[in-house]
Amino acid sequence: MSKPTPLSGFPELLPEQRAVEQQVLDTLREVFELHGFGGIETRAVEPLDVLLRKGDTAKEVYLLRRLHETAEEGHAGFGLHFDLTVPFARYVLEHAGHLDFPFRRHQIQKVWRGERPQDGRFREFTQADIDVVGRDVLPAHHDVEVTRVMVDALRRLDFLPGFTLQVNNRKLVVGAYAALGITEPALVDEVMRQVDKLDKLPADAVRDALVGAGLDGPTADTVLALAAIATPDTSFTAEVARVLGDDARERSPLLAEGLDELAALLAGVADLVDDRTRVVADLSIARGLDYYTGTVFETRLDGFESLGSICSGGRYDALATDGRTTYPGVGISFGVSRVVVPLVTRTGLRTDRSVPSAVLVALTDEASRPASDAVAAALRARGVPCEVVASAQRFGKQIRYAERRGIPYVWFPADAEGGTHQVKDIRSGDQQDADPATWTPPTEDLRPRVQAKEQQ
Amino acid sequence: MSKPTPLSGFPELLPEQRAVEQQVLDTLREVFELHGFGGIETRAVEPLDVLLRKGDTAKEVYLLRRLHETAEEGHAGFGLHFDLTVPFARYVLEHAGHLDFPFRRHQIQKVWRGERPQDGRFREFTQADIDVVGRDVLPAHHDVEVTRVMVDALRRLDFLPGFTLQVNNRKLVVGAYAALGITEPALVDEVMRQVDKLDKLPADAVRDALVGAGLDGPTADTVLALAAIATPDTSFTAEVARVLGDDARERSPLLAEGLDELAALLAGVADLVDDRTRVVADLSIARGLDYYTGTVFETRLDGFESLGSICSGGRYDALATDGRTTYPGVGISFGVSRVVVPLVTRTGLRTDRSVPSAVLVALTDEASRPASDAVAAALRARGVPCEVVASAQRFGKQIRYAERRGIPYVWFPADAEGGTHQVKDIRSGDQQDADPATWTPPTEDLRPRVQAKEQQ
Repeated sequence: MSKPTPLSGFPELLPEQRAVEQQVLDTLREVFELHGFGGIETRAVEPLDVLLRKGDTAKEVYLLRRLHETAEEGHAGFGLHFDLTVPFARYVLEHAGHLDFPFRRHQIQKVWRGERPQDGRFREFTQADIDVVGRDVLPAHHDVEVTRVMVDALRRLDFLPGFTLQVNNRKLVVGAYAALGITEPALVDEVMRQVDKLDKLPADAVRDALVGAGLDGPTADTVLALAAIATPDTSFTAEVARVLGDDARERSPLLAEGLDELAALLAGVADLVDDRTRVVADLSIARGLDYYTGTVFETRLDGFESLGSICSGGRYDALATDGRTTYPGVGISFGVSRVVVPLVTRTGLRTDRSVPSAVLVALTDEASRPASDAVAAALRARGVPCEVVASAQRFGKQIRYAERRGIPYVWFPADAEGGTHQVKDIRSGDQQDADPATWTPPTEDLRPRVQAKEQQ
Repeated sequence: MSKPTPLSGFPELLPEQRAVEQQVLDTLREVFELHGFGGIETRAVEPLDVLLRKGDTAKEVYLLRRLHETAEEGHAGFGLHFDLTVPFARYVLEHAGHLDFPFRRHQIQKVWRGERPQDGRFREFTQADIDVVGRDVLPAHHDVEVTRVMVDALRRLDFLPGFTLQVNNRKLVVGAYAALGITEPALVDEVMRQVDKLDKLPADAVRDALVGAGLDGPTADTVLALAAIATPDTSFTAEVARVLGDDARERSPLLAEGLDELAALLAGVADLVDDRTRVVADLSIARGLDYYTGTVFETRLDGFESLGSICSGGRYDALATDGRTTYPGVGISFGVSRVVVPLVTRTGLRTDRSVPSAVLVALTDEASRPASDAVAAALRARGVPCEVVASAQRFGKQIRYAERRGIPYVWFPADAEGGTHQVKDIRSGDQQDADPATWTPPTEDLRPRVQAKEQQ
């Protein structure tokens, strides 16, 4: 095999980069489980009719077929999932009889999209989703719950830049449009679709498109004035009244409901806000996919705005239904690869060692390997990751072996003449006697640490 | 959507079954990291020429194409990986300049094979691999190392039945055949392929096939006599001498090398053997894939022999090479799905609760939700997974809510009149005063426990 080359859109990490991603995944899972969200996985493959029912990503699906497929097999009807929400809705319907509702779950898996690779967009990437799904009903306090869980998780990733969670509510938007006389469903969808482009297009261009879609000029201006509202607290309520009139709540009960839900959400997460963690009611947020029915989320990472939203989701009251029973849900999805890959490749984030080992056990000569293995076994029995050096070179080379991998300690076994065991911190040069049955490194040296480039 | 039906060969687990699998994965990773094996992931997709270079599974590959693919894209040249060894060899070649050798890694990922679903065989399944790869050379003590690491990991999965690790060595086999005059490479391969069928076919049928392949009767009998050797210690050496003659070592240096390597492996893992853990030198083990060059492993699980080998691997001296540099390796792969799926579906293995929550915080009325949320936050701050009940039904129904999920404790917040917080162990009925800032359940209640059906 000649040297292989990377595949565009299929990022792969070196061990010290993957260790960063692993710590992100571990932190997410730990927080999700503290909040009662158990993990599930769904198969990577779904029937095409499940994949194409909702959403606007139909063109991005990867289809599967067996290399030696026969015509009757019909595997052309299967594809790789492009998100975790659609498969989760299918899982809920398929297994509803064995689940307890409200059903909380987290799901951390790869997804695939055949889209053109670009900044923060990959063809294979990992998402971490949490959702709560009810049977028939799901109270609005669960919208607050999933927001709090995800913000709690993101706050604990202390090597992340600051971020802004942008929240809106589809009921508010649709209710406001109703108050403006925009009620025809296809027109409502089209107006939302155009407003959703405000982060990419100038307002004038969006206004032209709104007028092109059939709005009169003043209505288009009002739609844009609404979308311009963004407040870090519940003052958006007063701003909406200013734009639509004080009687708008009475004219549109749906608007009133949306305003109250969004205000409750802002109030419910206010205690989590800090220097790195901002939550904003942003009435321009719509989300492209069409299954959201209430709360919608997006998240921008400071300094990485070009990645788009790194954490998105919302309330969907009708995604999963078998005709008799409907399972309303609310969820939020963190783009693990979308954040981790740029952090490791652009800012050089990595762990301070490329191996899990906290200790390299040195080797006097090949005949003494069992003695070095015994030291390693004693350390592992107390939870200290370690490895025995590969070959009995001179000790200077063995220390160099540890340095290259970032292993902080080198252990010199007692030699055959009855010397003492010694352990050397190769960062400081300190070397002292140690007993393999009791010595433990400081807790902060037990696991690789994530460090930014300036610390390297 | 009508109720979806399962896809054959794509197993999915309920939350209390997935929790078993998650504990298996966590234990494997913990042990691998204690031994210095860091984790990597490779992309799920490989160019078809990488997938088809080695191995006999060409017919089982899933190809990918985009739904709206243009002819020029040529995505027909990519498929999903069918194991983790071939992608790892590609990863080593691609990233060799950034890796330190010997390079240890673990890799826990899904793989896909388009084969017919049957007992223990799936179309999508999870494997957990460890490998050590050297540059140019890799001493034989690494064969002992990977064996010890995997056996250490399997021993810690205390809900697994007992198992037998069967070890052989390709040098021994090829060297023994050379001593018998079987040296033509195609014939050697064919004899190994037939001997590999001994676990499925009667010896007579294999003998007929060997004679059909060109062996004379006495040689075929000797090949079968060799393959019948299986000893739990190094006495296989004497048995080989009995079958081939005392001078066979001198006649075939490769045989001598294989005998010594296998004896060293048996001796190197002897201290890990116990009632549940058996290691046997079994000279019938060959492994179907053609890249092994020395040590080969298979593993049988007691009571689940029909699954075939649950943990397999070996030494490959030439899998990864770019023409200038060769990267010899040795590795072993545990079939996570192959073991976990039958255990949970046939023997009913599951965790004792379907959610991570150790505590359900009850709710006096909807207005007091913030007070219950505060109790939950205090518990989580000390690492206690918990959830607040979904709605303020009467307490009997809230206790039933916990029972259904297997949550062991229900917390009754101090009511507005200044009562005390109380926590109830709903298994024993014990109820006592508790302080949310200090109360912690016993350690064994913090995480769901895996239990067999008879305990349920």
